[in-house]
Amino acid sequence: MGSLATTARGTATPLAARKSELDRALAASGCDALLVLAASARDPDLAPFVGPVHVHGSFLIAPRRGEPAFGYLSPMERDEAASSGLRLLTPEALDVARWARQGEPEEVLLANVLERALLLAGVAPGTRLALAGHLGAGLVQAVCAKLGESDWTFVPGHHLLLDARKGKTAAEIDEVRRVAQATGAAMRAVAALLADTTTRDGELWLEGERLRAARLRREVAVTLAMHGLEQPEGNIVAAGADGGVPHTSGDDERALRAGESIVVDLFPKGLLFADCTRTFCVGRAPAALLDAHATVREVLASAHATALPGERGWTLQEAACARFSERGWPTPISQPGTSRGYVHGLGHGVGFDLHEYPSFRRHAGAEGTLGVGDVFTLEPGLYDPEAGFGVRLEDLVTLGADGPENLTPLPYDLDPRAW
Amino acid sequence: MGSLATTARGTATPLAARKSELDRALAASGCDALLVLAASARDPDLAPFVGPVHVHGSFLIAPRRGEPAFGYLSPMERDEAASSGLRLLTPEALDVARWARQGEPEEVLLANVLERALLLAGVAPGTRLALAGHLGAGLVQAVCAKLGESDWTFVPGHHLLLDARKGKTAAEIDEVRRVAQATGAAMRAVAALLADTTTRDGELWLEGERLRAARLRREVAVTLAMHGLEQPEGNIVAAGADGGVPHTSGDDERALRAGESIVVDLFPKGLLFADCTRTFCVGRAPAALLDAHATVREVLASAHATALPGERGWTLQEAACARFSERGWPTPISQPGTSRGYVHGLGHGVGFDLHEYPSFRRHAGAEGTLGVGDVFTLEPGLYDPEAGFGVRLEDLVTLGADGPENLTPLPYDLDPRAW
Repeated sequence: MGSLATTARGTATPLAARKSELDRALAASGCDALLVLAASARDPDLAPFVGPVHVHGSFLIAPRRGEPAFGYLSPMERDEAASSGLRLLTPEALDVARWARQGEPEEVLLANVLERALLLAGVAPGTRLALAGHLGAGLVQAVCAKLGESDWTFVPGHHLLLDARKGKTAAEIDEVRRVAQATGAAMRAVAALLADTTTRDGELWLEGERLRAARLRREVAVTLAMHGLEQPEGNIVAAGADGGVPHTSGDDERALRAGESIVVDLFPKGLLFADCTRTFCVGRAPAALLDAHATVREVLASAHATALPGERGWTLQEAACARFSERGWPTPISQPGTSRGYVHGLGHGVGFDLHEYPSFRRHAGAEGTLGVGDVFTLEPGLYDPEAGFGVRLEDLVTLGADGPENLTPLPYDLDPRAW
Repeated sequence: MGSLATTARGTATPLAARKSELDRALAASGCDALLVLAASARDPDLAPFVGPVHVHGSFLIAPRRGEPAFGYLSPMERDEAASSGLRLLTPEALDVARWARQGEPEEVLLANVLERALLLAGVAPGTRLALAGHLGAGLVQAVCAKLGESDWTFVPGHHLLLDARKGKTAAEIDEVRRVAQATGAAMRAVAALLADTTTRDGELWLEGERLRAARLRREVAVTLAMHGLEQPEGNIVAAGADGGVPHTSGDDERALRAGESIVVDLFPKGLLFADCTRTFCVGRAPAALLDAHATVREVLASAHATALPGERGWTLQEAACARFSERGWPTPISQPGTSRGYVHGLGHGVGFDLHEYPSFRRHAGAEGTLGVGDVFTLEPGLYDPEAGFGVRLEDLVTLGADGPENLTPLPYDLDPRAW
């Protein structure tokens, strides 16, 4: 995790490469096995171990010091499951058809299947299990209650997996790089549309129509689709006051105007996510916006210079807050809960989830220290909801053995004509 | 649910329209409230009640006979949450910042927040809750265990929501229709590419290259992106032997050949899903494939004629099996577990999940009866893995007050040049 060893991972299967780290994390949690429950193998807690296989209802059992096993429920998915390269617990071995024939409710079927799977994987009743993956809440509660009757006990295991995948394998970084390049292409496509607009009565026009956020979103979606990517978490195209609140996704139908800020935050996913934000302004930008943009750009440059292995995310956040304070802006340190100024964290890890480790939070433990192999954002921003603008600049960075790499090397200019 | 009343739902908020059905279902389960836990408001158990709002960590508490409340965790999402039109449990009212400041683990924070939320919503300790939504398994287990200490108890609630949303509102059917039209456009785009190919040494060529499944997938993705749609469950482009196993998604790099079956199954999502399959063959189709295709088309026509309100899905499945048996094919009834012949169910409901009610299963209860407002697939198929072909034809149907509507009125021809 965040050690030099992570760079060698690309040569082994992801699970084999991570098994010893996982075993250590299980031991530290007093657990003797990991259980991942998933509605599909694309679950961010499962994909890092099984790779890009197309399997629906499935689970992973990884006993500490034992061989992991990948279970699946539909015989029709045998070929896809086999391509994981893992030891399989097949529907036939798990007697899925028998439970299904009995017409039992879903939670009884799954509990029966898991009970058999745990025994086949050598995880005896009484074992304390770290539990991860994502599934229907009612199903999880009922299945765990039923397995609890046989003395299996559970503790939350998601953070163990976040730890184990904090440092990315070479193959994972290649995938993030691919997704980040497509993200860059989509951002350039947005800049090109904005650069092509004309202004009438303060509104931006393109292709004989008022330019709306929806048109920019369509260009982004098509560009990403050409690269085989989707946006499971959506995106942000937030103009003017919409951009003054960082998590507002932006009104599709709003006509865009000259002189206002347009925050474009794209975070598509292939097997892993990328994440990048730029802020545009067509025509003459107000002085306050120009000034905020210059300050954000300066803070981002400092963050790039100091985001090195061994540094803590929170230290970078403190430095960013200090710089913004010097320029007269409120920050979460000077004014907790502020909705004006700098109002969020400096960055977050990116991977199978859009937000994972490293953490930039104050109270983070080891996951708060940047390491080689980590992939994370640096994303200072300034927001003024009353003045009706927002500025955010976000790069995606990975720390290689030879130094940091900016995975989103795009212009920072407000003016799309400068791109 | 499946009653004529469903057609009137479009005029009310989705939750208001469904509240009385939900209350009845809660009463039948011996529960006094519904609790939906979700990582985002797009959760299929939450979206039917809150609409297309962009909110992350959130939950719904719907007391029987009481006013439902929508809770969210991030103050930055206040505007989006408000657009649900529901009574809100805000992060401020839930004291989220206090628990976060204490640096407690995620499960402690969420349990504290939910405890407060349940009390604010008038759901006292000791209440039996129907639990639904989707969240990290470890988090669900730990939160429920903690709430259980205060005597809240849980039963699986997902099926109550499937019941409540079996009959779709007018607005939901409009959205499915929009997604189905885009799906049709994508299928026509695939047919057009196939029709444009030339054949060399038995392989299909297009644009100076061998045509591979990846090229068809790119066309599908771009067409859907133009309509603002994505494919969270992927798609199937399965040629030859790949198509002989219904759930194999198909090898992207495989060069497509003349005379082989190409099964294309598209199931994109807007706010709701659509689902459609066609099977193509470029050039001269083998007699066995032609014969299977004619049989599947005949079974689909019968299914369309008999899929009417009051009919059971299982009855349609039995009729399809009888017809396939007459033609000499094994079926799940004549030969359970067969991987040759007709090997799956005739259809499934489609909505916020790709697979929901109505059910076509033998042991289904009330959810196995088709009703007005239902949206479902009819998808007979024949598979011969040894001969190396598959055929599936799948239409999406809704039952209106004035009769059934085929939402995917596309050609059935094997030959893309006939499209």
